[in-house]
Formats: sequence, C-alpha cells, structure tokens
Amino acid sequence: MSNAATQHEAPVREPAAVVIVGTGLLGGSIGLALRAAGYRGRRIGVGRRMSTLDTARERGCVDQVTTDLTAALGENQLVVLATPLGQFAALLENIGRCGAKNVVVTDVGSTKARVCADAQRLLPDAGVFVGAHPMAGSEQEGPVHARADLFHGRPCILTPTAATHPQALAAVTWLWTTLGMHLLRMDPTEHDRQAAAISHLPHAVAVVLVNMAREAGAMRIASSGFRDTTRVASGSPDVWADIFESNRAAVADALARYGEMIEHFRAVLTHGGRNELVALLEQARQQRDAWCEAAAGDNDG
Amino acid sequence: MSNAATQHEAPVREPAAVVIVGTGLLGGSIGLALRAAGYRGRRIGVGRRMSTLDTARERGCVDQVTTDLTAALGENQLVVLATPLGQFAALLENIGRCGAKNVVVTDVGSTKARVCADAQRLLPDAGVFVGAHPMAGSEQEGPVHARADLFHGRPCILTPTAATHPQALAAVTWLWTTLGMHLLRMDPTEHDRQAAAISHLPHAVAVVLVNMAREAGAMRIASSGFRDTTRVASGSPDVWADIFESNRAAVADALARYGEMIEHFRAVLTHGGRNELVALLEQARQQRDAWCEAAAGDNDG
Repeated sequence: MSNAATQHEAPVREPAAVVIVGTGLLGGSIGLALRAAGYRGRRIGVGRRMSTLDTARERGCVDQVTTDLTAALGENQLVVLATPLGQFAALLENIGRCGAKNVVVTDVGSTKARVCADAQRLLPDAGVFVGAHPMAGSEQEGPVHARADLFHGRPCILTPTAATHPQALAAVTWLWTTLGMHLLRMDPTEHDRQAAAISHLPHAVAVVLVNMAREAGAMRIASSGFRDTTRVASGSPDVWADIFESNRAAVADALARYGEMIEHFRAVLTHGGRNELVALLEQARQQRDAWCEAAAGDNDG
Repeated sequence: MSNAATQHEAPVREPAAVVIVGTGLLGGSIGLALRAAGYRGRRIGVGRRMSTLDTARERGCVDQVTTDLTAALGENQLVVLATPLGQFAALLENIGRCGAKNVVVTDVGSTKARVCADAQRLLPDAGVFVGAHPMAGSEQEGPVHARADLFHGRPCILTPTAATHPQALAAVTWLWTTLGMHLLRMDPTEHDRQAAAISHLPHAVAVVLVNMAREAGAMRIASSGFRDTTRVASGSPDVWADIFESNRAAVADALARYGEMIEHFRAVLTHGGRNELVALLEQARQQRDAWCEAAAGDNDG
C-alpha cells in the first residue's frame, strides 16, 4: 500500500530558488516557513493578481514577485504549484514548454491521480515531478492568513512513480521536511481513495449539515459543536469544486458507503438496544482519541 | 414557533442557594460562573461520587457538597439538574417527594420533551419546573475542565409551559442571564426537532465519519479538517446514548432527511454540472459565514 519515506536519502543541495506559484494561504505559508527554517535561496512568488502578490511580498512570504511564470523559471529551481487544482494542467504545460534545466516540480493539490497523469502528459520529462499533498490548511484564504507553522508536525503524502528521478524526490523531500512535515509515500490512486475518506467526504458532510440546519430553521440555536463540525464548509466553493471534480469517482463511492453507514446508525437508533448504540459511539470515540494522541505525538516530535 | 425572552420581567430575588446536581463539566461551570458573576448565596454540589464532588469543591465550583439530594433541599432554592439525562426522572421524583417550599427546578438537558413530561408526572406542582438547554459544552468531561466562561454569549433555550409559575420563570431567567446567556423560548417538541438538526445529527455524523475513516484505513493521513469535523465524537458514549434515546424519533427523521441530502450531493457530483456543484457549496458557505458573524456579535454583546 504505502511506505513511510526514509530519512536516509542522499543529501540534497538547496535549490537556488523556490518558485511558489499561487501565494495564497498555502503558498504564502510555504514561503514564511522556508524563511523561518533559514532557507537562503530566493523565494519567488508567481500569480495572476498583482494585489495578492504584493500582499505576499509585504508579509514576507516571498522575496520577489511576478505574473510571468516563464520569466521566473531558471536553472536549479524548485517549483511548487500552490494554486487551485483547476490551474495545474496549464501551469505544467507552461513549465514543459520553457525547457529550464534542473527544475523540479511539486504541488500542494488535494488529489493526486489527475496531476500525476497531467505531469506525465505535459512535461517533456515527467521524472522531475513529484506529487505532494501536505495535510494542512484552513477555511481561510489569502496570504494575509499565511503562517510559518501551518505545516509543522502534519503529515505530507508524496506520490513518486517509477519514472521519478532520485534527485527530484530528494529535492521535494528536502522541501517538505524543511517545513516540519511527516512524510508518507503512496500510490496516487490509493492517496485519492484515502483522501476521499478523511477530507473530501468530511467536506461534503459539513456542507450538507449546514444546508440541513438551514432547511430545519435551526441555525439560530447552533453552538460550538455545530461550529466545529461544519468549519470546513466555509472553504472556497471554487477550490472545493476543483477538488471534488478531480476525485469524482472516489468521492462518489465514499458518499455511497457513508450513506449506508448513516442508514445503519438510524437502524440501530430505531430498532437496536442501548448496548448496540453505546458500542457504535464507543468505537468512534476510542478510534478518534487514539488518533488524537498519535497526532499530538507527531507534533511534539 | 418561539419568541425571544424579553428582558422586562419582574426583578427576582436571588435564591438563598443554588443546588447543582451533577458537578461535571456543565454543573461545575455553572458554579464557577455564578461566583464570577458575584452571586452571594450558597452553591451546593450534589452527586453520587465523592471524588467528583471533592474535585468540584477544590476547584471552587461549589461551596459545599453532599451525596444526599433530599438533605440538601431547603426553602427558596434553585435546583439545576446537570447530570446525564438518564438520571432526571429519578431526581425529579426525589425532589417531588421532599416537599421543600419555594424550590424552583431547571435542567441542562439536550432534549426537552421528555424532561418536561417527567416534571409534569413526577412533581406535585409542575409549575416550578422550567426546562432549559444551554447551548454550550465540550467533548471534555468532569469538573477539572469546568470554566467560568463556558456559557458566556451562547444561546440558551427555555421551554416554559402554560403551567409554569411566573416566579419560577423569573428565577430560571435570572440564572441563565447571570451566566451571560442569550435566552430564547420554545415549545419542548419544537426544541427537540431543532436540536436534532444542529446538535444530535452532527454528533451522529461525526461518529459515522470516524468509523468510515477507520474502515477505509485512512486515519493515518487525517489532519485538522478531520479533527474539527469529528471533535464531538469524543464525547461520552453514555451521555450521548441518553440524548439519542430521549430524542429517538426526531433524530431518526433528521438522519433520514440527511441521507436524502447526501444522496442529492452525490447525484450533483456525479451527474450535475460545475455550476450546480458550486451553488451547493456556495449556499452552505454563505449560510455558515452569516451565522458565524451573528454569533460573534452575540459574544461581543
């Protein structure tokens, strides 16, 4: 299924520059974290809107900014795609056409099968691309919310393939470990199946809960439990439409299975005894508490 | 449907003592909040386990403690039932038998129809009981987690009936407004329907999400979104089994409707266009953001 990345890889020369394409919450936080970790190369911000780029530079997320990706690219650079997923194909096509040498590419996308296929199709040498999914984020957007510690102690999944160059994997490993992340390796399709269960499904669930509370006319009495359960539903509709569309089959499968489990909960509530109901609640509590403890350990380490 | 409680009721004499039955997170926080608000009467903690009572007293949640409810009761007292729901009927029966004068009773239960019916059945004068549901809490338990500000700025639903004595309503209004809560009045059955939508359903949803993530073998890559969406699933299985069982029909209805809406989300994802998907996400985001803003206003006020 997957293996934890080893810490024994060849030492990597720091790239001359890290080109962050998309300087929003994630891209901006990557820049801040690099600086906090003592990275001495250039941090170049690339984007479509000068206003966002200027904010990112003013907040210290990047050293210089441009709206022209091709002009930003040069030798010995690490490019991080940190835009919404829907822009990845066009960006990879641009990078492929420009032909800069020793450029390694990674991304922050929440799905991996599509971007890996796009890299294979659009880059002259797909071995320079290593897909990544840093499991960190927020419902907030933009460089004003960027934080140097956003990634610290969180899992990051890498999806190298048989074609991946070892130097590319080493460079991308350098990036995410420098940001304090705990690396895992996974097949892109397996990643998408697991991400559907722990991220994309919970997002859909939160969206439906809000729409249901509204339909029931009950928002007025909602409190902290509702706030936390639905937090992710305040995320950007466009960003999330990209994610859902790029992982449509796995999310549809997860929703179908989830619907069965909701129906099972209803059956236990309606026809089961108290013991069966308590067992269902207890199973979830134990599982979640064990996960929280393990996650707290990761954050310490 | 329901009306906001007015702030124009007759001034109320503070009760000589507030008897808090169950000195866990909620009961303990009531005691701390009363002290913080300058209440000068006695705060008496009643419970089954001396260890919990001792902790509550040591933390300053109550002034004195006892395991004997009947011995604690006296004239001009306000009794707050803050145990799990499953103990309410026995407690009301005890209070009914002891016959102390000018005793007013309220509760913190997450469902209201059953406790109101129990009060009607078990108290010689049901007019002294005013059901309450302070919309505040945590997945944490016990007096060690009690906080004076737990209730501040949150909604609290009161469910007086035609039989309720005005003095009882005034005393209970005094309690919850002293704790900084924003009062609403509602019919007990309407409360239970709305609470199913914004509290009991989200709890079931979180439980099923955890069990689903475990089944998918994906807990290892879960991160902050999953943590918040499932936070409530770390709540006590026994407390929540009580809540689900005392609101079985409304929760079963909510689960059925929710299952339909999940199926609708899946249909939009699978067969709908991007615009339809974005509209579904946008509707939830707008609704939630408007609610957050209103809630922030309440907390300021």
